[in-house]
Order: sequence, then structure tokens, then C-alpha cells
Amino acid sequence: MPDIKILTEAELRALVPLDMAAVNCIAQGFVALAGGHVVMPPIMTLIVPDHNGEVCVKTAYVPGLDSFAVKMSPGFFDNPTLGLPSTSGLLVLFSSRTGMLEALLLDNGYLTDVRTAAAGAIAAQHLARPDAKKVCIIGAGVQARLQLKALTLVRSITTATIWARDTDKAAATAAAVGDELGIDVSACADLESAVRYADIIVTTTPSDRPLVMGDWLQPGQHITAMGSDQDHKVELDPSCLAKAKLYVPDSQAQCAIKGELRSAIAAGVISANLSFPELGDVAAGNVPGRQSDADITIADLTGTGVQDTAIANLAHQRADAAGTGAIFTS
Amino acid sequence: MPDIKILTEAELRALVPLDMAAVNCIAQGFVALAGGHVVMPPIMTLIVPDHNGEVCVKTAYVPGLDSFAVKMSPGFFDNPTLGLPSTSGLLVLFSSRTGMLEALLLDNGYLTDVRTAAAGAIAAQHLARPDAKKVCIIGAGVQARLQLKALTLVRSITTATIWARDTDKAAATAAAVGDELGIDVSACADLESAVRYADIIVTTTPSDRPLVMGDWLQPGQHITAMGSDQDHKVELDPSCLAKAKLYVPDSQAQCAIKGELRSAIAAGVISANLSFPELGDVAAGNVPGRQSDADITIADLTGTGVQDTAIANLAHQRADAAGTGAIFTS
Repeated sequence: MPDIKILTEAELRALVPLDMAAVNCIAQGFVALAGGHVVMPPIMTLIVPDHNGEVCVKTAYVPGLDSFAVKMSPGFFDNPTLGLPSTSGLLVLFSSRTGMLEALLLDNGYLTDVRTAAAGAIAAQHLARPDAKKVCIIGAGVQARLQLKALTLVRSITTATIWARDTDKAAATAAAVGDELGIDVSACADLESAVRYADIIVTTTPSDRPLVMGDWLQPGQHITAMGSDQDHKVELDPSCLAKAKLYVPDSQAQCAIKGELRSAIAAGVISANLSFPELGDVAAGNVPGRQSDADITIADLTGTGVQDTAIANLAHQRADAAGTGAIFTS
Repeated sequence: MPDIKILTEAELRALVPLDMAAVNCIAQGFVALAGGHVVMPPIMTLIVPDHNGEVCVKTAYVPGLDSFAVKMSPGFFDNPTLGLPSTSGLLVLFSSRTGMLEALLLDNGYLTDVRTAAAGAIAAQHLARPDAKKVCIIGAGVQARLQLKALTLVRSITTATIWARDTDKAAATAAAVGDELGIDVSACADLESAVRYADIIVTTTPSDRPLVMGDWLQPGQHITAMGSDQDHKVELDPSCLAKAKLYVPDSQAQCAIKGELRSAIAAGVISANLSFPELGDVAAGNVPGRQSDADITIADLTGTGVQDTAIANLAHQRADAAGTGAIFTS
């Protein structure tokens, strides 16, 4: 059997930072998805009710890429009481030509973090105003930090506010990310005023009730909602989607059951029969993004297997070029 | 992060032979499934149209087991022209309590072979006549050999015939398995007479058209059909299911879309509204198996995630007890 490469989280962190190369890699994945030849089955979800856990499995075959990934993302939400992170996981890479196991990317969720933040950058690239400077981040976890960093790759961000239910955590994240990015980042206690103030709003929470109301939104704002990826989650009041000039899901099929679109359809605000341009259509230039400085735009990101296959190929190619990783045979 | 154990195919072959312990392990999995607390999502299938490939992903959470498996089974059917096997794959084992990655079972499909054959033994245990001695195996691949071996664990098999489209392959498999098991095994060219002659018939092919006709079946026979696991495959003419006194799917939900049940429903021979006892119900004793020497019985096996989780736990426990495997951290 062919050799198998095993890459650790530390190696993958060194190989694949969140930068424009990663953003462009993920953008190419979305463009391929829009081309209609990607095969991306519905997400598999295993619920582990006895331990407050769930595992999502995502995959996609992308013609032209050497390999395809199967990604497993466990989320076990009692883990912090055991001193363990809630989320972990790995990607398994197979040859597109033969299906043979090629690599085990033991990233503990790191590559998911990067490819998720990269999608936020792509959304802002095409949907945020070119002169957007002020950001409101809702949530104070890893994605709060990475989504803000991703925005700085594509827009000249000068200031950001972070709101979270846990105000201490918001303050700590604001201090850390402000230092890292060299911009003015502060925590804020009043969510409505933080939303009203921003050019770009990014929601990054696991909330199961709306956090952002439609009547808070101002002309010219862009929202990326990336927290909702299960059928009980929601961050935007359905009135937000009604108010948007342009609504762009990463995958309409997924967003209709796991994203903000789900609750907007359930509320009767959006018809289930409507068809929206997807992020790949916009990234490919098949459909225009923002068309006016006054538009309100929304990107709904549930996370797609095509992102996982794209980032795993990038990591694998770089590991081969650098001679990184352990070789195993079985 | 916790240590990860990596086990190779050679180690797994030594740790988990096809024997009664493996059969009982899989039976316990089916009994748990019948108990109603197993969580087993629908199979994920990725089609790779450009390379005549497909990947199935199966999983199940079984309360009481330390770990759950996610199994990936690629089948790339042009591989033999490249000197590679058509099927390969691995199992990834996660902690049931925390979702943390525990082990990588790089079995290249070996544990799937064992757990699949074990299900055939369980079916025969409960559905074949106690005095069954004569077997007809249809197909000449790995499962042809292993299904026959599995039957010898639960019935006093004395003779077997093997039929396959490729008569040379049937002869070679017959010679090899006869030597291995020490029973009389021969290849045969006439499928109908081979079926009529047997007490137990096992179909192990990827056929997409019926191989066994209902009017060939004799009172007292048992059939295990384990080849059909996709929605284009079929080995039994629908009239076989109509003629059976007892039809037992491994999972009715799966068999209705991927097993013999699918084509019987499509042919209008079986109503889609009927409910059948599953293999776990029979193994648990909730439902009787064979009730008369004259019954015709059929087991329809599509392969379930609960088998994968069961066999992976067995392998992991034995590896820990034996100190087998490489330890990795990430």
C-alpha cells in the first residue's frame, strides 16, 4: 500500500497560517463549487446525547484537486469541565484518483478554523463596502479573533468592538486581538450600539436565539453570520434577511436546514422557493456582489466540505514541498 | 491532547481474527441496535464520477461502549488496472465521553471484512436450519471466503459450492478455502443447481441484476444476501422475498434504499409500509428466528455503523491489553 503522511497540529499551524494564500485557496474551492462539478454530499451528523456531544462529517470531491478530504469535527460541550477543549477533530485525505489513504491531518480543528475565517474574508471581499473600516464582532471565541484577522486581509480595518455574553471574555479577546493586529479593538456592553456603529458585523456564536435585530441595521452594512451550523442555532432575527438587498449563502442547500435561512423560512419572512446566488457564484464573478454603497448585504456561512478539501490539499502540498510530516505504512 | 494509538493492518489482522469472539462482539452490537438507544445516522456516500469511485462513511454511537468509530470505505473500481486493490479505507475511533481522537485503525478494509462476515454468521445462527450442512456461495471474492468460514463457526458445514461469473476465479477460491477450512469445496458452473442443492446460500457479489430466482428456492433454505449495499445493486429476484417465510434486514431503513428490499419494493412485491424484524431483534430474542424446518428465510445485509463501532472497540481493547500499536500525539 502507498505511504501515509501524518501531520500534527503544530506542523499544520506552521504550514497553513491564515493569510491571503489561504483565503485564495478557499475562494478557488468556492469557485469550483459554483462550476457545478464538485460532488458534495449532505453533512453527516452523529448526536451523542449521553455526553452532550455531536460529530459533523463533511467531504467534497473537487475535480482537478489531487485529493479529497473527509473531515470529522466533534463538539463535546461538557469537555471544559474535564479540562479539555469542546471541539477537536481531524481530516483524512484520500487520492482523488484511487481512493487510497494519503494523509492524516491531526489538526484538532485548526484547519477548520482557518478555512472558516477565510470564507469570512471572501464574503467581505465581495459584499462589504470597499471603504469599510469599523467592525463589530459578536462572540469572543477563536472565530471572533480569526474572523477579525481575516477582515484585515481584505479591508483597511481601523477599529473593532467585541460583544459577548461574558463581558470579561470579550475584554480579554479584545485586548489580545488588538495587540496581535495592531488596531484599536475594545469590548462593548451594548450590542445594539455596537451593531449600529459598524461597517461590517460578524456573528460567531452558538446562539439559539436571534442576537441582531433588523431595525438596528444601517444602509451600507455587511453582515457575515457564521455561527449557525445546526438546525437549532440562529444569530440574526429573520427581519435582517428581509431587510438585506443581497443575501448570499455558502451553500443554499445547507443554509436552508442549518443556517440563518432556516429560521427566516420558518418565520415566513423568506420563501422556501427562492433561489439565491451562493458565495461561489459571487467569488467566480458569475453574479455581482455589492452594487451600491447603500446596500445591506448578508453572508450566511454554515461551512462546506469543499473548504475542507481545499485547505487539506493546500496543507498536504506544502507538507510535501517542505518535507514535513511522519511517514507511515500499513 | 490525549495520546492517539495507530494500528496497522498487520497488527489488526493478528488482534481480530474471524472467530466466535468477533461474531459475539458484532451480535452484541446488533442487540444494542435493537434496544433503541444506538444513534446511527444515514450512510454518507461520496461519488467520484471521474475515477469510477465512491466512498461510504458509516458511524454509530453505542451507549456503554467506550468509543465510537467513523469508518471510511473507498471503492475505486479501476484500481486493479493500476495494481491497487479496489477497496481500502480506515476507521477512526473517538472517545464516547469527550469526542477526542483515540485511535486510527489503518486496516485497509480488513475489519469491515470481519464484521461483515460476522453478520452472516449471526444470520445463519438464528435463521438457518440447525442441521444445515451444504452451502452455496455466489461470488468468489474476499467475502465469499469469509462468509463460508463464518458459517463453519455456527453450523456443521460439510460441503460447499462456489459460483462466480469468472469460473477460473471460482475454482481458485474453492481450492483455497477448501484447504483452509478442511471441508469439501468445489466450483460449479450451473448456478441454479448449486442454489437448489444448498441448505444455506450466501450472495456476495456487486451484481446489478438478480442472480437467484424465487422458483429455485426449496423449503428449509436460508439465504444471506450481503452484496447489495448501493441503490443500483441487487442479487435476489424480488420473487425470493415474496417466497420467504421470514425476511430479516440488518437495518430496514438502510435495506429499503440499498438492500434487496429496495428492488422488491420497486417491483411491487413487498409493500413499503411493512415493518420487518431486524437482525438485532432476532439476535436479542425479541422476535423468533426460524420456526420450522420448512421455512425459507432471508437475511438482507447492507452493513451498519454499529458493526463498525463494535469491531473497532474490540480491536482497540485488545491492542491496549496487548500493548500493540504506535503512540502519537498532536
